[in-house]
Amino acid sequence: MSQDKIAELRKEIDSINLQILDLLNKRATIAKEIGVHQSALGTTFYDPQREAYMLTQLEMHNNGPFSNETVKALFKEIFRATLALEEKEARAKLLVQRKTAQDRTIVELPDGTKIGDGSFQLVAGSCAVETYEQMDVVGEALASRGVKIMRGMAYKPRTSPYDFQGLGEEGLKIARQVANKYNMLVTSEIMDMSQIGMMSDYVDIFWVGARNMQNSFLLRALGKVRQPVFLKRGLSATLEEWVYAAEYIASSGNPNVILIERGIRTFEKWTRNTLDISAVPLIKLETHLPIIVDVSHSAGRRDLAIPLAKVAKASGADGLMVEVHPNPPVAMSDAKQQLTIPEFHKLMDELGL
Amino acid sequence: MSQDKIAELRKEIDSINLQILDLLNKRATIAKEIGVHQSALGTTFYDPQREAYMLTQLEMHNNGPFSNETVKALFKEIFRATLALEEKEARAKLLVQRKTAQDRTIVELPDGTKIGDGSFQLVAGSCAVETYEQMDVVGEALASRGVKIMRGMAYKPRTSPYDFQGLGEEGLKIARQVANKYNMLVTSEIMDMSQIGMMSDYVDIFWVGARNMQNSFLLRALGKVRQPVFLKRGLSATLEEWVYAAEYIASSGNPNVILIERGIRTFEKWTRNTLDISAVPLIKLETHLPIIVDVSHSAGRRDLAIPLAKVAKASGADGLMVEVHPNPPVAMSDAKQQLTIPEFHKLMDELGL
Amino acid sequence: MSQDKIAELRKEIDSINLQILDLLNKRATIAKEIGVHQSALGTTFYDPQREAYMLTQLEMHNNGPFSNETVKALFKEIFRATLALEEKEARAKLLVQRKTAQDRTIVELPDGTKIGDGSFQLVAGSCAVETYEQMDVVGEALASRGVKIMRGMAYKPRTSPYDFQGLGEEGLKIARQVANKYNMLVTSEIMDMSQIGMMSDYVDIFWVGARNMQNSFLLRALGKVRQPVFLKRGLSATLEEWVYAAEYIASSGNPNVILIERGIRTFEKWTRNTLDISAVPLIKLETHLPIIVDVSHSAGRRDLAIPLAKVAKASGADGLMVEVHPNPPVAMSDAKQQLTIPEFHKLMDELGL
Amino acid sequence: MSQDKIAELRKEIDSINLQILDLLNKRATIAKEIGVHQSALGTTFYDPQREAYMLTQLEMHNNGPFSNETVKALFKEIFRATLALEEKEARAKLLVQRKTAQDRTIVELPDGTKIGDGSFQLVAGSCAVETYEQMDVVGEALASRGVKIMRGMAYKPRTSPYDFQGLGEEGLKIARQVANKYNMLVTSEIMDMSQIGMMSDYVDIFWVGARNMQNSFLLRALGKVRQPVFLKRGLSATLEEWVYAAEYIASSGNPNVILIERGIRTFEKWTRNTLDISAVPLIKLETHLPIIVDVSHSAGRRDLAIPLAKVAKASGADGLMVEVHPNPPVAMSDAKQQLTIPEFHKLMDELGL
Repeated sequence: MSQDKIAELRKEIDSINLQILDLLNKRATIAKEIGVHQSALGTTFYDPQREAYMLTQLEMHNNGPFSNETVKALFKEIFRATLALEEKEARAKLLVQRKTAQDRTIVELPDGTKIGDGSFQLVAGSCAVETYEQMDVVGEALASRGVKIMRGMAYKPRTSPYDFQGLGEEGLKIARQVANKYNMLVTSEIMDMSQIGMMSDYVDIFWVGARNMQNSFLLRALGKVRQPVFLKRGLSATLEEWVYAAEYIASSGNPNVILIERGIRTFEKWTRNTLDISAVPLIKLETHLPIIVDVSHSAGRRDLAIPLAKVAKASGADGLMVEVHPNPPVAMSDAKQQLTIPEFHKLMDELGL
Repeated sequence: MSQDKIAELRKEIDSINLQILDLLNKRATIAKEIGVHQSALGTTFYDPQREAYMLTQLEMHNNGPFSNETVKALFKEIFRATLALEEKEARAKLLVQRKTAQDRTIVELPDGTKIGDGSFQLVAGSCAVETYEQMDVVGEALASRGVKIMRGMAYKPRTSPYDFQGLGEEGLKIARQVANKYNMLVTSEIMDMSQIGMMSDYVDIFWVGARNMQNSFLLRALGKVRQPVFLKRGLSATLEEWVYAAEYIASSGNPNVILIERGIRTFEKWTRNTLDISAVPLIKLETHLPIIVDVSHSAGRRDLAIPLAKVAKASGADGLMVEVHPNPPVAMSDAKQQLTIPEFHKLMDELGL
Repeated sequence: MSQDKIAELRKEIDSINLQILDLLNKRATIAKEIGVHQSALGTTFYDPQREAYMLTQLEMHNNGPFSNETVKALFKEIFRATLALEEKEARAKLLVQRKTAQDRTIVELPDGTKIGDGSFQLVAGSCAVETYEQMDVVGEALASRGVKIMRGMAYKPRTSPYDFQGLGEEGLKIARQVANKYNMLVTSEIMDMSQIGMMSDYVDIFWVGARNMQNSFLLRALGKVRQPVFLKRGLSATLEEWVYAAEYIASSGNPNVILIERGIRTFEKWTRNTLDISAVPLIKLETHLPIIVDVSHSAGRRDLAIPLAKVAKASGADGLMVEVHPNPPVAMSDAKQQLTIPEFHKLMDELGL
Repeated sequence: MSQDKIAELRKEIDSINLQILDLLNKRATIAKEIGVHQSALGTTFYDPQREAYMLTQLEMHNNGPFSNETVKALFKEIFRATLALEEKEARAKLLVQRKTAQDRTIVELPDGTKIGDGSFQLVAGSCAVETYEQMDVVGEALASRGVKIMRGMAYKPRTSPYDFQGLGEEGLKIARQVANKYNMLVTSEIMDMSQIGMMSDYVDIFWVGARNMQNSFLLRALGKVRQPVFLKRGLSATLEEWVYAAEYIASSGNPNVILIERGIRTFEKWTRNTLDISAVPLIKLETHLPIIVDVSHSAGRRDLAIPLAKVAKASGADGLMVEVHPNPPVAMSDAKQQLTIPEFHKLMDELGL
């Protein structure tokens, strides 16, 4: 008995479902038309007062059994879906979002090196520029293994104002000189938009550090430079926030953004940060941007560099960032995580590069 | 022009909104009727295969502009709201959930002491029972300030199997003896349901530690005892998970659950855990259960006990848990967070108790 | 037998302890003398190569039973303690660190209002400046309750480049105008050091947001302005990092730094962030800076503002930041956390202000 | 001048270093002798009162320049190093700790399958046993790809007491029946030590879930069974806590512990948990236990299973746990993360298995 009755009632529900479906689509069609008129007027699609009005109307006419709260919650979902449709029409979602399975950004560097084309690129070098000799020794080792992009850090973001803050422009000069000697490219962290003009003379790729991931003034300014930009994930940024940070650069005019996963802050104490390797496939699914993995900052431990480099390669990342120093124990920063030159060669051997 | 057109189109949308509203409520009424028949048949309301069928039907009939994905997402919300309605009818939500602003649990202890009636109760004593002398010295101090509930920990959950694990039943005997001497009640942590029978002879309030917050076998077994239960929040449990853990006890028959906030795990290093004080007003908003704050484990630092105790009082908590030891530096566990007896008196003075 | 032997051996150890103590202090005295010479030469105290040399010497001479690793670990502790001693001599630790129990910074504002003198100051107003009318309505309510400091946010740091970014200088003008009308002070977030000159015309207190807490260029530049600076804790900054960020400002010349706790990022989902209330007593213990609590961003929920405000007051904080809007549901940002004007009055009533 | 003076003073320091070294080793030798006597007496090495006495002595004799606090901190390090030495002598550290680079546990299962020998083993099957048909379909697919270990979950730890809790013993019977049909082994989660006897009839490998990682009663009881034990990492357990949990089992007599990394709780929202892939190389460095990676719970998303499986393989893990269901959308739990059978075949293809 109950079984039959249930079957009968379910048919009624099926019919109502289709009626709701038609009304939803009819509603969406009208909303799109409103969107066209709003675009003509230059107003934004999202109008909280209009939403408040509609919700009040619905509350006034609601006789249950759904509570007013449930009705409002359901209609907010409908509003959101409609708004998404309008925005999609107008702007086709975020610039950095992936539209098709084939859609991907390939960044071409001045020497023809490409990032994002399926190759696996290394960005390597000491944590910071200290002396010409140090850079030269490292540069020679990197060049001998075909590394194309050298770290040339002259401004170090440090927790304490009393820690070594980098050599400044002097450091950039050294990095450029050594890079030229070995036919390499230089990347260096920019910390404030006032540095753009000066740094442009020395660097091939700008780099935004974790602490500046949401510095919107800097991001927008880098949207106007000709160089590509490495964008590190913030210390505890969600993937969504990171993608939006990339959108700040892209929407300001510079499409050549390369993301760098560098670990997130957790409660674990055996590593400096926790490498979030899932970020690589997720970024590949959601955006068309290249992504590389910084195995030095992620772990903060020299002894994890090789296994994490293998992991990064297997994850589908477009490359690796790794720190190399002639004598890590006396390095002026991050002594525990920089590889010696023999360790660097071992890493390259184990990766088959 | 556009302005007028927009106004006109909006009227159409207003009308469609009300049509959708009517259909949603009609649909919900039928679903409730189905629910009644299902209850008669003893089947559960949630039927994933039925949902899959409806979604397929909707996809087949969808002509846009909403994408199939959006349509399915919107209908899943509708299904969820309907299901919630059916379940609400059948069970009136969680037992521990607050139904009205006045709804609250007041736990009455054997000596008439009440928790949750607006009073501010202290649960105090050493981290663990070590000797009769230690317990006696602490018990006397507590009793002199009117504390009614004594910690009598005989089983310590320890990270390492080689750390002090508690005196076991011998410790319970000491705690009971001292509590009787000073007319106090004993609370002690239970670590496995096999201990219930034995411990029932000694303890007035069972206590589930953070590590066991989701031990459903233990929770259900404590749903069958006559004593009230302290339920500590898990090391990194969400508030929702904690409320559900309380529901395991309540739904097994024991309504006398008292929650203990004891800090959550974060990246901060100056404290052992991070006291989540927002938990107190949130638990009061969402449930009718009493909640007390453990200021010793939250911070893991003696020097924060007094300020955090004031904070707990201001937050609306029903009481405080605090550790007191005659000589903390030589305590067998948690030496850094236990108060000396003079510090305990200072705490009581500063709280005006 | 064994007991006697143990007692005898322990006496030997006691004697060795004192010999080690004397050598450690003798060593420290010499190291301090070296420090004086180094200061004369302008070199830094920390010399990793010297440390490497000493460790190698110790390894060469170590005959056990301590392993080389243990020996090196112990001596690194000795080096660290010695270095701390040298630095203390030279610089007396961080400027913002508390030296005595009485040591505290009291910030005096242009109208004589003080922060950090034991009073409880409110910083209130809408999340962002939207219109003159909105600011005027809120300003009048704030003034009627004696609030002295008004939020006048004209630059909003937003996750998405497509979200409302604030009215810019126009917003600052409105804020200034309304503040003048009601004899209030204006605080506004600065997002880039290039804004200092322009903003100085409008704001009484600069404010560094969570996303910029480690923007060292901005911090240093604010070390040179005459206005006090509110420094919000970073999204997942440790207390140590926050204190160092304050030191960047103080060491650049501006001692008037006021910290704002605004919640940290955790896994909990019922609140936007987790208010870390322990931060208040810890900052008071470790620094002499004032600290206030932002109850709006911490929870991201209007319904927690009053209980958290009480908690903040009990914690010993120097004040409160809270968002107030004439009509929160239509606010252009943070709709869920802004109080209505009646709710604001209720908050002031419940705090007894 | 200063240069010369510095060189001279440094020689003095070098000499003092060696004197301290000799005294430390002399002290350690005596302490070890005390340890031997204590072992004879059956007392523990750690004696807080003795330490308190020594610290007081040192304070009384300290004339600076080191502060009493620094002196006590340095000596606590010395005490800790000495204690470690004594414990090492007595117990040679943790049983699960790796002593040499070659040291590793290889677990041999009843059918000769080995975990930890360099092979890559799959543990696969549906999230929970639902029906014989479901298990049979999955079992056939698994067997066709050479999978040896089948998930046979009959007790599901669920957040809500009203969610599906598993079929209980009936589910175990089905799992055993299907496993026998396809010559496979069964692993199943145990939730309480009272289940050991009954479950022993059905399962080849016990499994401790994340919520029970620190259930010391259960861990100790599993130290006494003949079957190997899978030990999942707790929801927010540190690696150190996890290693100690394994030690609870090993020190109770069962050396066959296999760790399962299953993601940790962070603030990231696009994944259910954050896979901590660094755990694999770290566990290999610190312990001799095998470790496998659960790619289903780590991400909670079907679309990440293949990339994370590749990552797990590259990390050096000893195998993979993955969930497979004939029709995931209608699964009674974890619908979003279970693979369909074709997806499972794709995973095996892409891993080259």
